[in-house]
Amino acid sequence: MPKVSDQALALRRHEILDGARQCFSEFGYEGATVSRLETATGKSRGAIFHHFGSKEGLFLALAEDDAASMAEIAESSGLVEVMRDIVAHPDKHEWLGTRLEIARKLRSDAEFRFKWLEHQDRLDEAVQQRLLQTSSSGSLRGDYSVRTMQLFLELILDGIIVRLASGRSVEELDIVLDLVEDSVRRNTK
Amino acid sequence: MPKVSDQALALRRHEILDGARQCFSEFGYEGATVSRLETATGKSRGAIFHHFGSKEGLFLALAEDDAASMAEIAESSGLVEVMRDIVAHPDKHEWLGTRLEIARKLRSDAEFRFKWLEHQDRLDEAVQQRLLQTSSSGSLRGDYSVRTMQLFLELILDGIIVRLASGRSVEELDIVLDLVEDSVRRNTK
Repeated sequence: MPKVSDQALALRRHEILDGARQCFSEFGYEGATVSRLETATGKSRGAIFHHFGSKEGLFLALAEDDAASMAEIAESSGLVEVMRDIVAHPDKHEWLGTRLEIARKLRSDAEFRFKWLEHQDRLDEAVQQRLLQTSSSGSLRGDYSVRTMQLFLELILDGIIVRLASGRSVEELDIVLDLVEDSVRRNTK
Repeated sequence: MPKVSDQALALRRHEILDGARQCFSEFGYEGATVSRLETATGKSRGAIFHHFGSKEGLFLALAEDDAASMAEIAESSGLVEVMRDIVAHPDKHEWLGTRLEIARKLRSDAEFRFKWLEHQDRLDEAVQQRLLQTSSSGSLRGDYSVRTMQLFLELILDGIIVRLASGRSVEELDIVLDLVEDSVRRNTK
């Protein structure tokens, strides 16, 4: 019955991803050794590598998952909503800090960067689509391009992740996000 | 002649800092081993530790230097000017990427965080002073507090550092910084 087997595989894949996310979050990219990943996922390295090829593949699968769920929110409600979710539930998003630890790898490892950017594409497109849509409804300011506003929002998102990852409070950021939204909106001040 | 000796010490200190900055920039915080720091500075570990106590002390001295020179620009021209400088001369600021690598350490090592934040205080104060001054001259928008605008600018700075550190282009960011400036200014749209 291949269906059951597919389901079982999908479940196992999901379990590995959940455990791995915890593990990367706790120990960082470098610190999440294969042996720690085994403990965290409750799976053997054989099972892990069967699904994801390598630790790098596992990490990229998690990044792809993130990008997909962020894209979903961004599509319907915009990137600021993604950020509000992070600010409202910092614990849930602690693992995003690992993004900072791979910055050097992104810069120096072309193949890794290529795969990473491929995953982020879906999020980029969702953000762009949403901005274009909001723009054509006349709600965005008209003196900067959609591209500029997209970059602006991305900087804020990365800034929030830095703040979160370095253990500084994100409590006050909700009001900052109001300012961010006002900044891209057509002037109603 | 203590004066000459003081000068010689200051010069040596300066040489160590310059070499160490290069080394951290190239290899990252973890990758900058004591032996690599010796090569990069042309000084023995004895000399390095005499001046800075430890690798951590050396890193914090560099962070303090950064904070001081950023504070100087921020005091006279605001934090956006600091960011414009980074965007205009990314090569000169490549080492800032190491800030991301110590995020986990900032979160988990209370003593390190305390020392780090102490160094950043001068920059924070400079940014705040500048904002208060601009605010009282009536140039800032009045619907958000100075504190909120300061946090907003800090997020942007961290976002720029993430972009720089992960090897993505900062070319388009100059126009984004125009948007950032407009966002905190009293409305002239």
